[in-house]
Amino acid sequence: MKTSARNEFRGTVKAVRQGAVNADVILDLGDGLQIFANITNDAVEDLRLTPGRQAVALIKASFIVLSPDANIRVSARNQLRGTITAVMPGSVNGEVKIQLAGGRILTAIVTNDALQELGLAVGAACSALIKASHILICVDD
Amino acid sequence: MKTSARNEFRGTVKAVRQGAVNADVILDLGDGLQIFANITNDAVEDLRLTPGRQAVALIKASFIVLSPDANIRVSARNQLRGTITAVMPGSVNGEVKIQLAGGRILTAIVTNDALQELGLAVGAACSALIKASHILICVDD
Amino acid sequence: MKTSARNEFRGTVKAVRQGAVNADVILDLGDGLQIFANITNDAVEDLRLTPGRQAVALIKASFIVLSPDANIRVSARNQLRGTITAVMPGSVNGEVKIQLAGGRILTAIVTNDALQELGLAVGAACSALIKASHILICVDD
Repeated sequence: MKTSARNEFRGTVKAVRQGAVNADVILDLGDGLQIFANITNDAVEDLRLTPGRQAVALIKASFIVLSPDANIRVSARNQLRGTITAVMPGSVNGEVKIQLAGGRILTAIVTNDALQELGLAVGAACSALIKASHILICVDD
Repeated sequence: MKTSARNEFRGTVKAVRQGAVNADVILDLGDGLQIFANITNDAVEDLRLTPGRQAVALIKASFIVLSPDANIRVSARNQLRGTITAVMPGSVNGEVKIQLAGGRILTAIVTNDALQELGLAVGAACSALIKASHILICVDD
Repeated sequence: MKTSARNEFRGTVKAVRQGAVNADVILDLGDGLQIFANITNDAVEDLRLTPGRQAVALIKASFIVLSPDANIRVSARNQLRGTITAVMPGSVNGEVKIQLAGGRILTAIVTNDALQELGLAVGAACSALIKASHILICVDD
């Protein structure tokens, strides 16, 4: 199966913590990268997510907030740092590609205004902020 | 493949309109239901989305806004009307299930405060509002 | 701190209510404006969010739903009313700027179709609807 989500990061479930309706899932991608996802308890059971299980985090490019700054004190549980490898401005929105640890490429869509204002250009360091509740988890079987 | 997205609606691509960076895709679910998705042009090409192609819209439960009212004038391109079949309050958020045309069940997560304030209860009519940019499209092959 | 999020609203934490996994945070912006955010408990503790603490709400422009109508009965906990000061249509999406109380400017990205259909033009009153789960909170220290 292929999805429109521009970011698909494969990893291993490290921890699952269930609440009344929602659950926190931590996915270890390797190379020191972790993804925190907030999904429903139903999804945890349906996908049989337990530590050690292989899973993929899907992140839509338009859900990502970018910042040139590192270690921002922000509620978003995911803060991935890398180097910009491509910038493509559109009419209102623009696309940015960021290389993360292990050569992974992250694609983000932000406004052209943000691209200019923040000086997001090829070669610059950049942090991608993603709320745990914006991440989808999928499994192969 | 299974995903944590609580809503997976299968349909046929009806139209694709490409811009500079993003594209609009209309998916016909049958039973008079349509889904409007806003995805990247790259995704349109990668998934070979053209009219007539089978595809699935994935919608995370926490991206859905609910209203008891019908035909709200709102920028959200998706406004699906149905009847509430289940409500499960949690500690902060609660889950609502809504039956749409053709027996499809839509699952939404909203705050408990919203549940009480809007009187969202089993048997009530309810609209689900979803921005086109919050929808993921996937294909089987 | 600089981010690509087009909306950064500074305020004071008024209330925090923690559930099992997620928490509700109310940020008082002044001028009668409040922001309701739904974030993880971990984030509440990590950012030391308690009543009286200064914090900033980050809202990505593409997470905002617009409506010309006031006081819509909707589950979205944030409903900010203002006057449109600018509209810039793109190829698929368009950008709208809305002046809120206290001169704050809110930027939203919606589809061009929505702009036309709802008659969103400079000078018109407009409501911005934002789900609490779409808001990021950050602190300076």
